Amino acid sequence: MREFELIDALRTCLAARRDDTRLGIGDDAGILAPLPHSELLVTTDTLIRDRHFPGDTSVFDIGYKAVAVNLSDIAAMGGAPAWLTVSLAAPALDRAWADAFVDGLQAACAAYPGPDPIDIVGGDTTRADQLMVTVTAIGHVPSGQAIRRSGARVGDLIAVTGTLGDAAAGLVRWPQREPGASETDPLIRRLVRPDLRDGRALIGRATAALDVSDGFLADLGHILTASNVGARLAVDDLPAAHALAAAAPDLTTFRRWQATGGDDYELCLTAPADQIGPLRDALDCALTVVGEITAEPGLTCLDRHGQCLTADVFSQAGWDHFA
Amino acid sequence: MREFELIDALRTCLAARRDDTRLGIGDDAGILAPLPHSELLVTTDTLIRDRHFPGDTSVFDIGYKAVAVNLSDIAAMGGAPAWLTVSLAAPALDRAWADAFVDGLQAACAAYPGPDPIDIVGGDTTRADQLMVTVTAIGHVPSGQAIRRSGARVGDLIAVTGTLGDAAAGLVRWPQREPGASETDPLIRRLVRPDLRDGRALIGRATAALDVSDGFLADLGHILTASNVGARLAVDDLPAAHALAAAAPDLTTFRRWQATGGDDYELCLTAPADQIGPLRDALDCALTVVGEITAEPGLTCLDRHGQCLTADVFSQAGWDHFA
Repeated sequence: MREFELIDALRTCLAARRDDTRLGIGDDAGILAPLPHSELLVTTDTLIRDRHFPGDTSVFDIGYKAVAVNLSDIAAMGGAPAWLTVSLAAPALDRAWADAFVDGLQAACAAYPGPDPIDIVGGDTTRADQLMVTVTAIGHVPSGQAIRRSGARVGDLIAVTGTLGDAAAGLVRWPQREPGASETDPLIRRLVRPDLRDGRALIGRATAALDVSDGFLADLGHILTASNVGARLAVDDLPAAHALAAAAPDLTTFRRWQATGGDDYELCLTAPADQIGPLRDALDCALTVVGEITAEPGLTCLDRHGQCLTADVFSQAGWDHFA
Repeated sequence: MREFELIDALRTCLAARRDDTRLGIGDDAGILAPLPHSELLVTTDTLIRDRHFPGDTSVFDIGYKAVAVNLSDIAAMGGAPAWLTVSLAAPALDRAWADAFVDGLQAACAAYPGPDPIDIVGGDTTRADQLMVTVTAIGHVPSGQAIRRSGARVGDLIAVTGTLGDAAAGLVRWPQREPGASETDPLIRRLVRPDLRDGRALIGRATAALDVSDGFLADLGHILTASNVGARLAVDDLPAAHALAAAAPDLTTFRRWQATGGDDYELCLTAPADQIGPLRDALDCALTVVGEITAEPGLTCLDRHGQCLTADVFSQAGWDHFA
């Protein structure tokens, strides 16, 4: 398939649906009409075959995840995603492949828990030796209210949406997965089609937030560094899916998946204690308090007996950001 | 170098300079405050080693070109570029390499002929087998005034900025280039560091525009198709640099470079005859009238003797879009 034909095909099935999209794919640039009294958030993330997803991930799931990881960044700032551009580099492009890829892009947009559609307003397709997808997401946030990593204050509670560690366990299980596991296996599903959270719930309530992509400890560390604070974390309070406990061969593996596994794309946030209830009401998913922000720097990890866990309990991955 | 360290390094040298950049690189997303009464343009383009640039292109020039091709898309819509995100995938990343790459990014931003700085507000670095850079550019355009490909009207003149064919000739000369040719050889320079035009000059004057990236005939064809018109083109009026004539072995090669060579990133526009003068005054570069929009569909190419040139005078590349 020629590149121009592919772009034409994509253009047809990617017609703009938002009122504030003046022009979608097909010209030199898309034309957007941002809301008055709002600021825009912009983020970009690249997924590369065999690095960010297993080589035998389905085309649909590649498209889905490429969108999801970017929507997650917008949500983590308290924003509402509105527009995407998608750059695809692949060794071969044919129509069936492109259709499945676009289906995956659109499914992730549709799964986002906001009231408005998300439009794909720009794109690029190229041949490359290695499959690679770069998505840029643009979203709205009320002026001056975006949630940054740097806002955590001493005494804030630390909370996390959903459950942690599923994607890491899903990756271990991946080679032995059943057909259709992207739909049926909860750990595999989380790996390839991350749950999407509605970041608008954070506005006016959370003091700091980010999405858990590198591993919970590493990501929480980014908040601590940016906010110049420390934290006390109750490791056994980290929220876990039933399937995770069943899949873990031992407690150390279980903790490692939860604390250092990446790719969960849950939101980790800090907020004053009296905002946890309102946050729970506003979010459409579980929110679990897992710790507290402290004045003394560094991260102290405690188990349910109040014992301090040291770095060797966890994988080095992520952990050494706290050294 | 670890990825986080590289991002930190980039963050330091990529500090935001625009008043309307609320937050640059370093959080989950950049925060932008768009102008009131303006719309935004967004475009994305990927460059891949050995496909979009020769494998031995310097790191500086790779960064430069990745930015330039995107700024060119914003200009072609009549916009003023404001923000970029940059996704870099490379087999190896070290500090010297990253510094040269960022120098190239910033040099292209600085070369843009507008009054305001351009901020890099988001980015991503990854390892991949093949070097690949994806840039997304966001720019301002007065509401409702973006220049689309679809606005050409019968009787409009067709004009092109600068000169055509230089990059194609530069690519032929590339293997024999001298050291420093990116600065000293006008054809090589155009290949690796395309001239950037100020698209704001087009607002209220041009009826349609795009940037010449696939080759002049192919790109003009996009305007004709989108506008549902035809054109008569005076092939011998296509503007040429002195260096191009000296480099061309024969007239056929010369014409092929001009008409079908890509990568020139000049602006091709249509406008009523009485707007050509004002466009010349507003642009900071040459503007040459090369043809006229006609009601009859298709593209007629005439030489200086009024002889109709057929497809076999040009390379098939680009030309078959008009078949």
